[in-house]
Amino acid sequence: MSYEKLESRFRQYHRLNDLRSILYWDEAVVMPPASGSARADSLGEMGVLIQGLVDQPEVGDWLAHAEAQKPKLQPMQVANLRCMQRIYLENTAVPSDLNRRLTVARGKAEQSWRQLRTDNNWKDFLPQMREVLQLTRESLSALGSAMGLSLYDSALNLHSRGLTTKNVEVLFNELKAFLPGLADRVLAKQGRAQILVPEGVFPVQAQKALCRELMTTLGFDISRGRLDESHHPFCGGNPHDVRITTRYRDNEFISSLLGVLHETGHALYEQNLPREWVEQPVGQPCGMAIHESQSLLMEMQIVHSPEFLEFAAPLMRRHFQEHVKNPKSLETDNLIRLINRVERGWIRVDADEVTYPLHVILRFEIERDLLEDRWPLEELPAVWDIKMRQYLGISTLGNDRNGCMQDVHWPGGAFGYFPAYTFGAVIAAQLFAKIANENPSVRQQIRQGEFQAINTWLRERIWNQGSLHDTLELVESACGPLGTVAYQRHLESRYL
Amino acid sequence: MSYEKLESRFRQYHRLNDLRSILYWDEAVVMPPASGSARADSLGEMGVLIQGLVDQPEVGDWLAHAEAQKPKLQPMQVANLRCMQRIYLENTAVPSDLNRRLTVARGKAEQSWRQLRTDNNWKDFLPQMREVLQLTRESLSALGSAMGLSLYDSALNLHSRGLTTKNVEVLFNELKAFLPGLADRVLAKQGRAQILVPEGVFPVQAQKALCRELMTTLGFDISRGRLDESHHPFCGGNPHDVRITTRYRDNEFISSLLGVLHETGHALYEQNLPREWVEQPVGQPCGMAIHESQSLLMEMQIVHSPEFLEFAAPLMRRHFQEHVKNPKSLETDNLIRLINRVERGWIRVDADEVTYPLHVILRFEIERDLLEDRWPLEELPAVWDIKMRQYLGISTLGNDRNGCMQDVHWPGGAFGYFPAYTFGAVIAAQLFAKIANENPSVRQQIRQGEFQAINTWLRERIWNQGSLHDTLELVESACGPLGTVAYQRHLESRYL
Repeated sequence: MSYEKLESRFRQYHRLNDLRSILYWDEAVVMPPASGSARADSLGEMGVLIQGLVDQPEVGDWLAHAEAQKPKLQPMQVANLRCMQRIYLENTAVPSDLNRRLTVARGKAEQSWRQLRTDNNWKDFLPQMREVLQLTRESLSALGSAMGLSLYDSALNLHSRGLTTKNVEVLFNELKAFLPGLADRVLAKQGRAQILVPEGVFPVQAQKALCRELMTTLGFDISRGRLDESHHPFCGGNPHDVRITTRYRDNEFISSLLGVLHETGHALYEQNLPREWVEQPVGQPCGMAIHESQSLLMEMQIVHSPEFLEFAAPLMRRHFQEHVKNPKSLETDNLIRLINRVERGWIRVDADEVTYPLHVILRFEIERDLLEDRWPLEELPAVWDIKMRQYLGISTLGNDRNGCMQDVHWPGGAFGYFPAYTFGAVIAAQLFAKIANENPSVRQQIRQGEFQAINTWLRERIWNQGSLHDTLELVESACGPLGTVAYQRHLESRYL
Repeated sequence: MSYEKLESRFRQYHRLNDLRSILYWDEAVVMPPASGSARADSLGEMGVLIQGLVDQPEVGDWLAHAEAQKPKLQPMQVANLRCMQRIYLENTAVPSDLNRRLTVARGKAEQSWRQLRTDNNWKDFLPQMREVLQLTRESLSALGSAMGLSLYDSALNLHSRGLTTKNVEVLFNELKAFLPGLADRVLAKQGRAQILVPEGVFPVQAQKALCRELMTTLGFDISRGRLDESHHPFCGGNPHDVRITTRYRDNEFISSLLGVLHETGHALYEQNLPREWVEQPVGQPCGMAIHESQSLLMEMQIVHSPEFLEFAAPLMRRHFQEHVKNPKSLETDNLIRLINRVERGWIRVDADEVTYPLHVILRFEIERDLLEDRWPLEELPAVWDIKMRQYLGISTLGNDRNGCMQDVHWPGGAFGYFPAYTFGAVIAAQLFAKIANENPSVRQQIRQGEFQAINTWLRERIWNQGSLHDTLELVESACGPLGTVAYQRHLESRYL
């Protein structure tokens, strides 16, 4: 009885969340410019109502009673109950006044950050960042007490279910042991290769047509989704209505295409969540590490592979042959080299697959220490510079814009998110190795533009599992205990 | 104290309603086809939550206590309190189970109606229509008891604040006294005029550009609104973000242009509601009779006028000169005759300004009698035919598709809505006569594409009044007691 009441309440909760996601999409894609302030107010009210569906004493009572029903429940229902308890804690553990203050501080810090980053103005950013950090600490501390987790563990757990500081440290130490050296060797090898960048005017209509062709070939169901334009590319909407966005520039088509195919990985996960559980907590995605593993499996394991580019290069030539000034740049071998080029740089979002994890490791070590108050926030630029020189061999001294101020995550209060990117990359490599192991013709299938076998495997092992398991359990059930072996092999085989 | 609590609660209510309007727009304009069923479920939950904000004992208590605060409140606050009481009654008077059954029956009847109308199948439509009628009667009866109104009065009041059956009968009797004869005279006169229909392929891009140019010239603020495409044209969104839609056909540009300008009238009302009250009940539009008066003032009084067409015809020629096969059809005099052509026909939505009210009067008489159970629903096709012959001189016997099954209103349960169209037309004529009386150069301003004086007048007298008054009080305060004199003069002067 209590369990049924919970299903009914959480169905409301997820349906309202689904509508809210459509409104976020609307805000980013179609909302007229002067409507933003009223929209923010309205979404604020909607947030209060949605939280109010869960933050109720009766929900706590039902959860307690449902525990007694457990013997009669199916495994998915038991897992659902566990997910409900987690959502209930997340919505009730933090005092609402603290929540409100943190929301305001994050909003203000994010807004100032845009200008202060442009101005390379760390000094004026510091006090706002300090407030966000302090309130985030308080909030995570309340959440951590309720869940029995340390500060950074509860930050990690918010974004990637079940991940611990220990898990991250073990994995990242393995990566630190081989990545810097690997980057040296890759750069030395790459130095000798000639790479042509396609030049010309590439009509946006043709770019859209190619994106649409490839995303549907990869399995995206366009009858339950859309492709649109926005300032920052994202995959939004909800599992019933998945909305990918990108932005086009007419002098360059590769970055928007790769962006769309990355988002297609996220989209396939959303579109293939277990249909009958998709309005319950257990039917939601398992967390951001798994979500990023799906986008990176698509982008790095499949789309960047020589086999996929052999399949896709003729399509690019068909769409752009008459628009490209240097036709040799669209030859398959050149595209493979271009799309897999490695470069050391300041900026995480521009980083290639080999150096990207170093950007993440640096951020993990810093945010863990900041939350635990191991050194004062004033020292952030200096610490950042030391670690950049250590891991990537370049300095950011006096260049905070391209250093510790480059990401929106910290002003936005999203501490504990960064590891999801690199866990995603490592999980993706291990999943793909498992797929290739079980299906020896997978590379041949990719070369022929056939993705049904890959998608069937992912649907069974990952997509259809929803939140039945925590992050690492899900990885283990799909492809064995998580490690860095497959990832290292993948990088060596692709780049050396 | 209670009044302040009410403002806070109704602000939530309107903000959530504003978001819901954006989601309705999304459904009609961008939602992918296969997402409809999940969207309907989610919007159902949202409706329950929104109703639950008002349907609470505490809201009833606050309303009772706020009555005692009245001496201390400002006039807008007193009016706001009255509007709150109305919304409270509308949300609490009808038992929620009846509400749910009516919603389901309407949904089913609307869905079957699409196919059954196409099939001219009255027989299978009858039982569904009977269920909607019966449940609507029950619902209006509950609402009527709570508000002290008869069945049809409470139907009218739902759509147009304060309008009574008596008001409608008086006005419609006046119209019936002169409209049929006037239509005869207009048709006799028009018989001699030659009218050319523009032929050619009119690019949709050019049509959009012209629509956008004219709607902004008329005062639409595009920084707080949009123009898009949908199957049925409408004006949606909310006062902060007003969204007009239309549909384009490339062999014809006039109907979509006129549609957009009609919706622009609705949009100007929404965009100019009193800014500081727009999230309170008193800041909402006064009802559908006034809303239609704004769209029809724009469409019939302004856009169809010779002066406006003198201004707009050169713009049409600029956009379409090179696409039209018969350039004479774009000459100003021809466009005036074409756009003001009168024809007797079966279909309300295709009717001209002279015959349209007869379509509405017929529907009013029928729906009033149906609600009051004066004759059985089985006789609807026969009654429809008799009245069509009486008012428009044409028969619909055996042609229910173009007779009593042509409108979505009744299967959708929207009894009491139709009079708003004709009240709107009559109010529009009287408002425009008042404007012309106070501003003798108004026709000259329209000829020059200047709408600032008209809009300033409307903003003060109508738009900015929100729901401060009931329908007829608002008309009276703006342009004297409502009558048909101005409307009759307008028709005679334009068509004879």
